[in-house]
Amino acid sequence: MATEQALTRFEAALAAQLPAEDSVPSRLHAAMRYAVLGGGKRIRPRLVYATGELFDPGHPALDAAAVAVELIHAFSLVHDDLPAMDDDSLRRGQPTVHVAFDEATAILAGDALQALAFRVLALAPIDAETRTKLITTLADAAGSIGMCGGQQLDMDATGKRGQIPFPPEKGSDPLSALRRLHGMKTGALIRACVRMGALIGDTDPGVLTQLDGFADDFGLAFQIRDDILDVESDAMQLGKTVGKDAAQDKATYVSLLGLAESKALLANLSDKMKTTLAPFDTRADTLRTLAEFAVARVS
Amino acid sequence: MATEQALTRFEAALAAQLPAEDSVPSRLHAAMRYAVLGGGKRIRPRLVYATGELFDPGHPALDAAAVAVELIHAFSLVHDDLPAMDDDSLRRGQPTVHVAFDEATAILAGDALQALAFRVLALAPIDAETRTKLITTLADAAGSIGMCGGQQLDMDATGKRGQIPFPPEKGSDPLSALRRLHGMKTGALIRACVRMGALIGDTDPGVLTQLDGFADDFGLAFQIRDDILDVESDAMQLGKTVGKDAAQDKATYVSLLGLAESKALLANLSDKMKTTLAPFDTRADTLRTLAEFAVARVS
Repeated sequence: MATEQALTRFEAALAAQLPAEDSVPSRLHAAMRYAVLGGGKRIRPRLVYATGELFDPGHPALDAAAVAVELIHAFSLVHDDLPAMDDDSLRRGQPTVHVAFDEATAILAGDALQALAFRVLALAPIDAETRTKLITTLADAAGSIGMCGGQQLDMDATGKRGQIPFPPEKGSDPLSALRRLHGMKTGALIRACVRMGALIGDTDPGVLTQLDGFADDFGLAFQIRDDILDVESDAMQLGKTVGKDAAQDKATYVSLLGLAESKALLANLSDKMKTTLAPFDTRADTLRTLAEFAVARVS
Repeated sequence: MATEQALTRFEAALAAQLPAEDSVPSRLHAAMRYAVLGGGKRIRPRLVYATGELFDPGHPALDAAAVAVELIHAFSLVHDDLPAMDDDSLRRGQPTVHVAFDEATAILAGDALQALAFRVLALAPIDAETRTKLITTLADAAGSIGMCGGQQLDMDATGKRGQIPFPPEKGSDPLSALRRLHGMKTGALIRACVRMGALIGDTDPGVLTQLDGFADDFGLAFQIRDDILDVESDAMQLGKTVGKDAAQDKATYVSLLGLAESKALLANLSDKMKTTLAPFDTRADTLRTLAEFAVARVS
């Protein structure tokens, strides 16, 4: 699969972009590398490359977009794990950054990873106009109307299951509020992966709209599967603390819809993604594989 | 003074770039506005505009650069004030963001302000190539080899006055280590202000080198004055907690050199800045005024 070759290139590019541990400030650089190079499924880079396969699979700017989005994702995990946020001590089977290092270093490592992500895009091997489009796409996805905003809604809602996050939006019910929360917290960055892959290859508005639809379904499916795994999996399999949602009294798809209806919704999204990708013939095979993974993954 | 008109434009541009408090997530947007619109001396935007006066004073991209750098500065203050970092409860005479809101909101507000800064530059009214140069300049200044890295060295050094921050650099003494720390923590962003002002107007390498020298002296002078104010001022005048450096056993210019020698160094830097700006005739008058302020300010 072409994406596996791309992923090998990606890991090398990622390691090369991170400052060496023996360069000052060593503790910060060690924490940044620890946060980013500790493995993970690399779903977001895979989405960038898989979308790139629809257009120009070998474009070198795909590496830059994949690295940038993974840096943003890693920064968000480091900050979300902090005691003042989700207070998680385990991530991918390893101590989280603030446990392995300390809280101040974790905050700063996240901050520095974000700055690095935008630097990588600003130097991507593609025309300057496209570089600035990639940057606005990623900045919107990461910021207050995207990922950070979604985490804020999550914090606002913690311990208030079934309540609408502050402030109430007219006509919104708990499920709509949860959908908005995850659409921002995880969906925005997933959409940015697909958008960046498309911007590097093509900017036809009709194609972008189709791919946005796919990305939204993908993000929702990924989150529902996450909620299911939190109640059905065990820590060794998942590589992180399980049962945290219930312990923190968080609203999830499982808590609002129940397990059976959550699984039915997931199956429905799977069908919808297949329909959306149908017109893209074999060029969308890697996107199809990723969609299947989002729906059926066990870790 | 031309800069005062620019500052009025700046405050309007800054407020316009920040999301409205009544847009979701309200709590996050309220915290972002609280962090940024609470006044402050706007030294960094002033440096952008004052450098712009050497070239094309009315260039609209100066507003974008000034807004972006102030967003980065505000984000750094919010994070530096956190309990895990400097643990400050007072800033500009007001409760810090984590006190006025909560820690999670403060972390996320800082994160979202950083993303917004790069978005503003990516959309600045200037050619795309220059926009990407502004972004790399600001990203380097904000990241692990700049501002965040300097704060890390500060954290590493806290409570170990006179010790060289981890890891020891060959041949470095406490004063060199402190200089490096502040060159990264505050100096890098100040240098970026001057560089961005210059990039928008002119990119002559000789001029950039001269202005880099001015910016480095300015940053150092600003920090020494800060250390002096921490021991000589009172909280009402300064608008923030005083005597924190000594209480936290932090190395400062005053603790390493003593008060008299710190003041002598400051006078020396003042003379050096005057010499550097001499060839720029009256176009550098605003930069001269700012340099005088850095050296002699009482708050």
